[in-house]
Amino acid sequence: MVVDGGDIDDLPKNDANHTALTPLWFLERAAQVHPTRPSLLHGSQRYTWQQTYHRCRRFASALSNRSIGLSHTVAVIAPNIPALYEAHFGIPMAGAVLNTINIRLNASTIAFLLGHSLAALVIVDQEYFSLAEEALKIWSQKSKSFKPPILVVVGDENCDPKALRHALSKGAIEYEKFLESGDPEYAWKPPEDEWQSIALGYTSGTTSSPKGVVLHHRGAYLMSLSGALVWGMNEGAVYLWTLPMFHCNGWCYTWTLAALCGTNICLRQVTAKAIYAAIAKYKVTHFCAAPVVLNTIVNASPKETILPLPHVVHVNTAGAAPPPSIISAMSERGFRVTHTYGLSETYGPSTICAWKPEWESLPADKKANLNARQGVRYIALEHLDVVDTETMKPVPADGSTVGEIVMRGNAVMKGYLKNPKANKEAFANGWFHSGDLAVKHPDGYIEIKDRSKDIIISGAENISSVEIEKALYSHPAIMEASVVARPDEKWGESPCAFVTLKPGVLDSSNEKQLAEDITKFCRSKMPSYWVPKSVVFGALPKTATGKIQKNLLREKAKKMGPVKLSKL
Amino acid sequence: MVVDGGDIDDLPKNDANHTALTPLWFLERAAQVHPTRPSLLHGSQRYTWQQTYHRCRRFASALSNRSIGLSHTVAVIAPNIPALYEAHFGIPMAGAVLNTINIRLNASTIAFLLGHSLAALVIVDQEYFSLAEEALKIWSQKSKSFKPPILVVVGDENCDPKALRHALSKGAIEYEKFLESGDPEYAWKPPEDEWQSIALGYTSGTTSSPKGVVLHHRGAYLMSLSGALVWGMNEGAVYLWTLPMFHCNGWCYTWTLAALCGTNICLRQVTAKAIYAAIAKYKVTHFCAAPVVLNTIVNASPKETILPLPHVVHVNTAGAAPPPSIISAMSERGFRVTHTYGLSETYGPSTICAWKPEWESLPADKKANLNARQGVRYIALEHLDVVDTETMKPVPADGSTVGEIVMRGNAVMKGYLKNPKANKEAFANGWFHSGDLAVKHPDGYIEIKDRSKDIIISGAENISSVEIEKALYSHPAIMEASVVARPDEKWGESPCAFVTLKPGVLDSSNEKQLAEDITKFCRSKMPSYWVPKSVVFGALPKTATGKIQKNLLREKAKKMGPVKLSKL
Repeated sequence: MVVDGGDIDDLPKNDANHTALTPLWFLERAAQVHPTRPSLLHGSQRYTWQQTYHRCRRFASALSNRSIGLSHTVAVIAPNIPALYEAHFGIPMAGAVLNTINIRLNASTIAFLLGHSLAALVIVDQEYFSLAEEALKIWSQKSKSFKPPILVVVGDENCDPKALRHALSKGAIEYEKFLESGDPEYAWKPPEDEWQSIALGYTSGTTSSPKGVVLHHRGAYLMSLSGALVWGMNEGAVYLWTLPMFHCNGWCYTWTLAALCGTNICLRQVTAKAIYAAIAKYKVTHFCAAPVVLNTIVNASPKETILPLPHVVHVNTAGAAPPPSIISAMSERGFRVTHTYGLSETYGPSTICAWKPEWESLPADKKANLNARQGVRYIALEHLDVVDTETMKPVPADGSTVGEIVMRGNAVMKGYLKNPKANKEAFANGWFHSGDLAVKHPDGYIEIKDRSKDIIISGAENISSVEIEKALYSHPAIMEASVVARPDEKWGESPCAFVTLKPGVLDSSNEKQLAEDITKFCRSKMPSYWVPKSVVFGALPKTATGKIQKNLLREKAKKMGPVKLSKL
Repeated sequence: MVVDGGDIDDLPKNDANHTALTPLWFLERAAQVHPTRPSLLHGSQRYTWQQTYHRCRRFASALSNRSIGLSHTVAVIAPNIPALYEAHFGIPMAGAVLNTINIRLNASTIAFLLGHSLAALVIVDQEYFSLAEEALKIWSQKSKSFKPPILVVVGDENCDPKALRHALSKGAIEYEKFLESGDPEYAWKPPEDEWQSIALGYTSGTTSSPKGVVLHHRGAYLMSLSGALVWGMNEGAVYLWTLPMFHCNGWCYTWTLAALCGTNICLRQVTAKAIYAAIAKYKVTHFCAAPVVLNTIVNASPKETILPLPHVVHVNTAGAAPPPSIISAMSERGFRVTHTYGLSETYGPSTICAWKPEWESLPADKKANLNARQGVRYIALEHLDVVDTETMKPVPADGSTVGEIVMRGNAVMKGYLKNPKANKEAFANGWFHSGDLAVKHPDGYIEIKDRSKDIIISGAENISSVEIEKALYSHPAIMEASVVARPDEKWGESPCAFVTLKPGVLDSSNEKQLAEDITKFCRSKMPSYWVPKSVVFGALPKTATGKIQKNLLREKAKKMGPVKLSKL
């Protein structure tokens, strides 16, 4: 009923003028506006927006037919394949919640996640079927609440057919069969309330149990649009999936691509060669990647690259602070690097180092240093500040006072699933606490100095591991570097550098000399108490999303035992 | 208090993860990210985003100091000057509602508007002060509820100083003084609820009293972002204000420009020469204009133009269906024309003729015909259809069945102010009724055939005045054309064409011959019963926003008396 009053604020909502915000409409629109435009390409698989819309409606219908809907969780264990993209629409179209699972996790962690979210159905790429099987076994053994989820397996013509046959023999439904069981004209409904949950993603949980970050339709809608606007991504963008979609729903770009009626290029294996090849073949305009992937691109051998780039390619990098040297090297190769920063809890990136035309004329290293900062808030995040966590007062914008990054606004998660304690901590004082330590520069741009837990405290002085890493990355022989605290007899802690060298730099004979050279190099770049007392060579352990696992390095450094007094 | 449950939809809103959507944050962000970038240029006036933010906060504070806030209306009577732009932020920052008033209205209509909205304060450009004065006089005489609003006058160095002196002598506060009375650090607050009203705009009301369209913060936020995305408008856009801001808040681009940290170029007088000059001087990237303005650009004399254009300029045209011939002519001059369609009730444009790459290779006239269609829904408008108003069923997508355009979603107004009857009609059956008649093409794009009231009914056959106008615009001698119904003794009604010729075409001696030539031309282009039986030469009456006033032409046609039987 429409009720009218005389007051200008007295006009109520009605069916015609209010509906829940949800990114699901983007897909319906893409199918209407550009039905024949390619939506998704993956090897020989090729879909149009109309097909994707039909497939996603089948997906939702197939779930609904199995009584899966509101408040149910559907898990997906897969790399960047079409089924994972379709899950971003098909699952919420049925009213259910999408839980993307990191494929690099081990079976017992996956068992924990499936049990924690009570997954009603699990979609698994054939390559990861045994992993899922093992996880289910652990879950069934460990928990009385275990109820076997429906299993759907996704076949891939490029993978070993044995794995698929095995899955089918175990009663899994083949994904295409699963879709066929649904109605392509399924009358999906948007959520009644835009606060309804759309996705669940677990943080890596290096120290405690993984925490389940719950996101809602409203936030997903707003971040999808915001992510396009701040990055200058336009209608028809061609987007390469290097960033795993299971990582914060691909920073919401899964949904953005539908809003832009763009084209998704899937990539099962992320290598420098595959990235360059896709850029040339599909005229890729945009991709997202963690700094380690940029590192791979920068250090690719000439035969893996296609340079100069045939056109400008925009790269959004986040997930760790990118060392300025990598930004410079990417720029030299013709990539336009946009640096963003965020967390699973903020739908992916929620700050951007917004580029200023006046920076163009600066020297390359100065430019890269400015661009290595985390920057300013996304449009969809209404408040961002760096505060003293004791007083909750903003730190001065002096580029040196360290505080915690806190956020507030529509791009902040609903909360952690079934974790009142973590929610209380995360939302203390009406702000979301990122756990990241940063400074605010005079121009208002923030710059991360460390994760709270990564800071090195040496003789009561805070040392930023990020700053030391930045210096290490500018060393000509170093490909990757990570610095953590090592116990120190005199200082309590001191910096320990783990370093991967560029190919061909090291043979076993010159290890010691190189370590000395690196130490000397550091001495020229930083206060002496920052200089790593230990330099360890070798590959760095990484998460599925390319984040260096500092927790493992910390353990390693601990096992090395404390730096002895004598060493001073 | 944060309450946590076990259900995935059971995580409540809190201060950290939910805030009202409002475009006001865009300004705060622009001032933070690009404080020194020009926000607004107007003659010798030049503001940066930081200055604009400070001025708008002063504006809000000055209102608040005068006890103007929630549920109050503040009216602005001004052309495209900085004060009108600032009003889009300053007024809602105080919690009040912005009512922009069309400067071409007469005093008695303005008196009606001010009385209807009970304007608490009126900001008026010095050029329109006498008009406002007269309106206030009429209001005070006609209504017992009259309470004299506070008057603020905006001076302009390029206008006659006498008008300003006069205003000040009448007790009006000078705008800059008004701002100075406010605090540049005023702690404005976003609305408690995003459904709160942000703006009020009156429809032209050609047949009845003007209706007050009330818009909310949520819709303004969503349309601002949507308008940038569908048009491919990126960060830092340079936008020329040809479209009056008083027309649907400049189709929400007032707020979009802040979201994009772009630059606004104000233009008091819209002429072809001024447009070309601004494009060259300020590197304008985008502007909006009604088709009549495009007509002016296309028909500008060589000395008024700067061609070829120094760079690509994007033009968004709406307000009336643009004849394909004008789209073609604009394209030839290097403008990239995007055709949109909407109403005050939908925050300005809510459909776009989304361009398809496959159209590029078509002949120019075919391209222009495709682009002359109204197209598909904006991202922020969730539903759009063409329906049979009896059954509310969608018409077939056959390009010929005419129905009414109906809309539903977040880009639809709250309602008309104090007008329950109009609201009931507008929102009948859970849809907003546009009153525009259209067909749906097989590709899903809609095309307007007429306003309900503009359709000509001749011998029980519907004739689309828009189709006849399209043909007339392709005649080499015609600059502007408008077709209305004229009473007809035999057919009830028949088409009557009002035509403005290109400069130099007509002397009084060849009027009759030219009319015959035009009739012949039409006969080659349309069914014989569509051919205008009367062709009248002369200037066409227009509204302030460049819309041809068909109501006046209809009156004129009526006064001409019915077409006699003998004429057949």
